[in-house]
Amino acid sequence: PCSNGLLDFAALPSFDAQQIDRAERSMWRYRSMLLPDGVEAISLGEGWTPLIGGQIDDRDIIFKVESQNPTGSFKDRGAALLVSVLKAAGASLIHDDSSGNAGTALAAYSARAGLRAKLFVPGYASPSKLNMIRLYGATLDAVEGPRSAATEASKAAAKLGDSVYASHIGHPFSVLAYRTIAYEIWEQLGQRAPTGIVAPLGHGSQVLGLMDGFRDLLTTGLIAHLPRVVGVQALACGPLLARWQGQPSSSEGSTLAEGIRIVNPIRAEALLDGLRECGGTIVGVSEEQIIDGLNKLGRLGLAVEPTCAVVWHGWQQVKDQFGPEATIVLSLTGAGSKTPQLDQLLR
Amino acid sequence: PCSNGLLDFAALPSFDAQQIDRAERSMWRYRSMLLPDGVEAISLGEGWTPLIGGQIDDRDIIFKVESQNPTGSFKDRGAALLVSVLKAAGASLIHDDSSGNAGTALAAYSARAGLRAKLFVPGYASPSKLNMIRLYGATLDAVEGPRSAATEASKAAAKLGDSVYASHIGHPFSVLAYRTIAYEIWEQLGQRAPTGIVAPLGHGSQVLGLMDGFRDLLTTGLIAHLPRVVGVQALACGPLLARWQGQPSSSEGSTLAEGIRIVNPIRAEALLDGLRECGGTIVGVSEEQIIDGLNKLGRLGLAVEPTCAVVWHGWQQVKDQFGPEATIVLSLTGAGSKTPQLDQLLR
Repeated sequence: PCSNGLLDFAALPSFDAQQIDRAERSMWRYRSMLLPDGVEAISLGEGWTPLIGGQIDDRDIIFKVESQNPTGSFKDRGAALLVSVLKAAGASLIHDDSSGNAGTALAAYSARAGLRAKLFVPGYASPSKLNMIRLYGATLDAVEGPRSAATEASKAAAKLGDSVYASHIGHPFSVLAYRTIAYEIWEQLGQRAPTGIVAPLGHGSQVLGLMDGFRDLLTTGLIAHLPRVVGVQALACGPLLARWQGQPSSSEGSTLAEGIRIVNPIRAEALLDGLRECGGTIVGVSEEQIIDGLNKLGRLGLAVEPTCAVVWHGWQQVKDQFGPEATIVLSLTGAGSKTPQLDQLLR
Repeated sequence: PCSNGLLDFAALPSFDAQQIDRAERSMWRYRSMLLPDGVEAISLGEGWTPLIGGQIDDRDIIFKVESQNPTGSFKDRGAALLVSVLKAAGASLIHDDSSGNAGTALAAYSARAGLRAKLFVPGYASPSKLNMIRLYGATLDAVEGPRSAATEASKAAAKLGDSVYASHIGHPFSVLAYRTIAYEIWEQLGQRAPTGIVAPLGHGSQVLGLMDGFRDLLTTGLIAHLPRVVGVQALACGPLLARWQGQPSSSEGSTLAEGIRIVNPIRAEALLDGLRECGGTIVGVSEEQIIDGLNKLGRLGLAVEPTCAVVWHGWQQVKDQFGPEATIVLSLTGAGSKTPQLDQLLR
């Protein structure tokens, strides 16, 4: 337990490249970093996603296509690991609060594991977003009020005892699982680190996992430097951007990038420390820039959700800070096929 | 050219396991079977999809998760190869007729290749299905009348000259690309063939590709027998089922399995011959069985579209023809996240 009530690991094994199962087509090629021997990995084929090249304004860019995970987002990695751990620990009923990618992923992996799952969702969540969760057989509990009301209901349920609170935020397994994105990028680049990585930033779980993963590789001497990580927030809801710039946070508005619409990010200190350590930064993009990025990525054959379309203009803001020879990875965290009212965003 | 106006290959290289690029995370690990040296492969990371185990009614089953392709269906393999060939041949503008997975895939790969694409679609196609095609930047041409009117418009456009008819049906590249599904299953099973494969059946392109691919492996002595392929049609539109059973085809109705709602399948003779050769068969499922299969697969953590949900009850119909030790692969051809009105199908 951390001082703020979150859980973290006391110790983890060192990264060992010899332990990579190179025949395994999923994130479980790094199984030795994720689970003790003998614990069953609950898998739908998550991870080992494509790393494909492209060009933006005559500059070479590399996309990590996390949208190609089983339920369409990088959250599948975290859900796979968390559900594996909870099942091994004897859970039969779990719950969490999310109406988005994390909830979809948890429902899918619970189904895969044969666990019952309950999702507390805001009462205002659109039915179309909840259909996938229902298809996976999870129970939905709509909670009236703001998003935080669903979290409170979820916490309260945990105290009743028969269900395990499978918080994708509070447990440290998601961030651990996201280290595999770093390992994969390293392998797929031919065992080297990129110069920079641009990723959406909400709670910061993915960014933390990326930084942790590359720190593992640095510690074991497999890379010579950490990539500079650029976290991109929506200007409409940018509490970490405000802190990074030393300003009071006043931006808690609505944004198309609903997956990173996080007013009170947790693990913020670790995140800001990590960004300073690697020479990274935080930038913000407008709603119009999100829409433009969505369409620009589409014209490259990449259909993503608005949440990760932030990386397009995020990259535009920092590109002059990287030389022309820099190896830049843009993380495409979620698929566009489930974007509501896509027709209104097409340009 | 074949007698019916379709195109086919005069000769193809033999399958050579030594040529597999085992470090490549996509169908291009079989590049030597697909493209001549020097031709650029247009790729979004298609293929090398997960093969994951599961259970249906206490019988072990293996799922080939084609829904995890870049645009959510196995059609990405065909589009990647076709667009690679057309780009190498100098095309700059291409067109096809499809409002479904094939059109989506062609639009995405055209964008990736920097080709302009036009899709002729039925006037009744739902706007939500066309949004992804628009996001990829393809031009849409809505054609009033039945589905066949879009095909006629597409053929007519080909005669005007400046655009290449990139028919995913008429060209033989799709079927060639689908051979890679067979190669992957063989590799992922530890270099052996399954006993049986159950797959949705419309025009039969995937089934033909699977049979061709395993025939390649048989010819080169890498497997000892062909898997028995079971094609599943919707009873509401089952012309190949009718022919298989020696009955006049009278079933041309509407079905939820819109991806296999094919009234006049082409390459039918080759398909029926192939099924006889491998000891396969064709079965049909009702609309209620499609809905049931969709929900049953969902409860395993697999969200698929109605078109490929046919495999659940297709398998139920043939399972007694396979012993308990049989290795059975169910092909999950398309993702469920784009299913229209999913809420009405949830049970």
